[in-house]
Order: sequence, then C-alpha cells, then structure tokens
Amino acid sequence: MKKIKVLKPVLVSNQQRAKENRSMFDRMNSLVINIIASPGAGKTSFIKNLITGLKGSHKILVIEGDIKGQIDSESISRLGVDVIQINTATECHLDAFMTAQVLPKIKKNYDLILVENIGNLVCPAEFDIGEDFKLAILSTPEGDDKPLKYPLLFHLARVTVINKCDLLPYVDFRPDIARKNIKRENPRAVIFEVSSKTEQGFEEVFRFVSKEINARQKKDKH
Amino acid sequence: MKKIKVLKPVLVSNQQRAKENRSMFDRMNSLVINIIASPGAGKTSFIKNLITGLKGSHKILVIEGDIKGQIDSESISRLGVDVIQINTATECHLDAFMTAQVLPKIKKNYDLILVENIGNLVCPAEFDIGEDFKLAILSTPEGDDKPLKYPLLFHLARVTVINKCDLLPYVDFRPDIARKNIKRENPRAVIFEVSSKTEQGFEEVFRFVSKEINARQKKDKH
Repeated sequence: MKKIKVLKPVLVSNQQRAKENRSMFDRMNSLVINIIASPGAGKTSFIKNLITGLKGSHKILVIEGDIKGQIDSESISRLGVDVIQINTATECHLDAFMTAQVLPKIKKNYDLILVENIGNLVCPAEFDIGEDFKLAILSTPEGDDKPLKYPLLFHLARVTVINKCDLLPYVDFRPDIARKNIKRENPRAVIFEVSSKTEQGFEEVFRFVSKEINARQKKDKH
Repeated sequence: MKKIKVLKPVLVSNQQRAKENRSMFDRMNSLVINIIASPGAGKTSFIKNLITGLKGSHKILVIEGDIKGQIDSESISRLGVDVIQINTATECHLDAFMTAQVLPKIKKNYDLILVENIGNLVCPAEFDIGEDFKLAILSTPEGDDKPLKYPLLFHLARVTVINKCDLLPYVDFRPDIARKNIKRENPRAVIFEVSSKTEQGFEEVFRFVSKEINARQKKDKH
C-alpha cells in the first residue's frame, strides 16, 4: 500500500555495489552462498553440519550476520574455520554495502564463503549482496504454506532446504505440499529434506555443494 | 553499519500518524493488540484460539496483514468474526499509514481489535501503528535465545507468548532460560506459555485480555 519513495534508488545503488562484490568474489575464486531463513529455522546448525562435512576437502569462511551479539560466530569458529561477524545494530538484512565492508578483511582465498543473513524471510530477499546463489531454509514447524506467503525469497532462492524433518511426526507439515508450493514460486528450485539434529539428508547437500565449488573453479581456469 | 539516511524522518511521520490512529481507536473504545512473530510461530492459530475463547463475551475485529494472499483471513472469518485484509505486496511490516487506510472501513465499535502483523521479528517492531500494546509470539522450535538476537521486539512487547509448548519434549528449548532472556530485554514483560494445538495455557490468556478490555472501557467512562 504505502511505498517509501526512496526504496527504488537504494536498491539500484545496492545492485551496483553487489556487482562489484561479485567481481571481487570471482577474483578470489570463491563460491558464495547467501543463507536466508526465519529466526530459529536452523541457519547456524545447517552451516555447522555443512562445515563438518566439507572442511576436510575445502577451505571455508563464514560471514555471520546478526543484529546483536556473536553467539553463533563463537560456536562456528570452534569447528576450526574462519568467521567474520557483522553486527547491523538495527538493519533487518545484510546488503551489498555491509558485505563490502568485510571484503578487505578476507586475506586468504576460500573455496566456499557461507553468509548467514539476519533471521528474516522478507527483507534479506530484496538485497543482492554479490552471492552466487541464495539458499532458503524452511523448517517443518513453520508450516508448508510459507512459500506462498513469502513468495519473493522462494522465487529467488536457487536452493531450498526443508529442515527439522526429525519433527515431522509432531507437526502439521506435508513435505509434498511444501515442495509443490516451492516449485510454484520457482519451478527450477533444488530442494533438500534434512535434519540438522539427526544429520539425515546431508550427504546429498554435501554432494551438491562440492559439485558447485568444483564447477566454479573449473570455470575460473578457462 | 550502513544506515539509510531517510529512516529517521520516515519514523517521525509514522509516529504522528500512529498518534492519530490511537486517538481514533480511543474514540471507538477498542483495545488494539499488535501481534508480531516469525513466519510459522503460530500467529493465526493463537488469534483463532483467542477468538474462540472471547467471542461469546466481546465484539472482535481482526486486521490481517500479509504480503500476499488471504488464506488466514478466510480461516479466521469462518469463526464468525469480522476480518479486514491488508496486503502489502512488498512491505515487510505494517505501519501506521497502512493501518490508517483501513480505519474508514471500520463501521462498528469493537471491544477488541487484533492486528496480525507480517511474519517478521525485526521490522514490525520498529513501527508503531497506534496499538495499545505489542504482543510477541515466540515458538519453542525457534530456540530460547531469540530474545537476545532480536532484542527490539522483546524490549517493546508488553506481552510475550511462548507457543508450541506441546513440542517441548522434542526440541531444545528451556522455558526458564527463555523467560530469563525475555526479562533481560523487558523486566516488566507479561509471559504466557501455551500450545495453540492442545489449547493448554489459554485460560490465563483469556483472563488477561478480558481484564485489559474491561480496564480500557472503565477508563473511557471516566
């Protein structure tokens, strides 16, 4: 209904900055995944499982976005990977400018950069930060109708991870309906069903991400 | 980090508009509750339980905020109460201007107006819409640390409802730690533990809301 008139120009300059970030990530030869989900959908535990599965074969950096605090950064760094914390104080999403501010801190080449965005299904979807792709996490207690209510994220996310599948016996979530709703917003979406708690379904995610890393590094050689 | 420079003046005019909304709600003699939570935390089912418990004794209106669609409005209106839908198309929160646009549609006096905000723990907290108080819903699968990560909402919410307590045996959520974290942001917070699925804990919520409605109507007589 009401529109804040400045919104469009802000997005335009964000896009320019995102383009510059993308060029820098390209030169670093890093696959960058922008991870977006609601508060409590399991972004941090998903990232920790991904690190455990891939750190033997790949160099990984995590950029950790939070409004306040660094609880997650601390628990991730205990896994032996590098972490850079961004605290936004009030902003409800990471944008290309915030991301640009951490780029000078990246002193090595990483195969994989995982960006944990602010817990929010709405605003982070609007801001390109220069990533290769967006990965949405939808947890089973949230309900299978969420892709229809927050369509922009599910439209843009190349990958959607359905998390907390260990809770399926206790919640009203139909994976087939969720898949249908995700595909309605993005027919080409890649969908995984996992539980960060039991680790079920992660082998498939490891294979997918490894393949993406290899494809990018091959591309850069040519 | 980066700040959008126009943010402060936008909030100022929102506050002026919220003040005007509040005067209108006062003249209507309605208690207005602004309900804020993550996607899938259970706003709609909480509202439906509240309606079932209170519709015998009070006239209730629901203002239903969604980016897109009206699934929730339809299911709420089946309970026999009036519902007004607001679709924001892109906005991640309701503000005082959007709320003002529905005020001319309110043709009766209601004892209680429940506003279901967009599913988002961050942005809706920043915008006063003219409500009597904000009510936050935190569901157990989200984790007991959320008040520390999304402090503004839990600081401002007079009431926090811990929902999905039927899932406590299956998730890592400690109600005592959650209460401590909520109280850290707002020492005067009123906290309820409920399950919208099993209806446990709702009698206490009904008593609290009825008392608030009665207190407001008494105030208006003087």
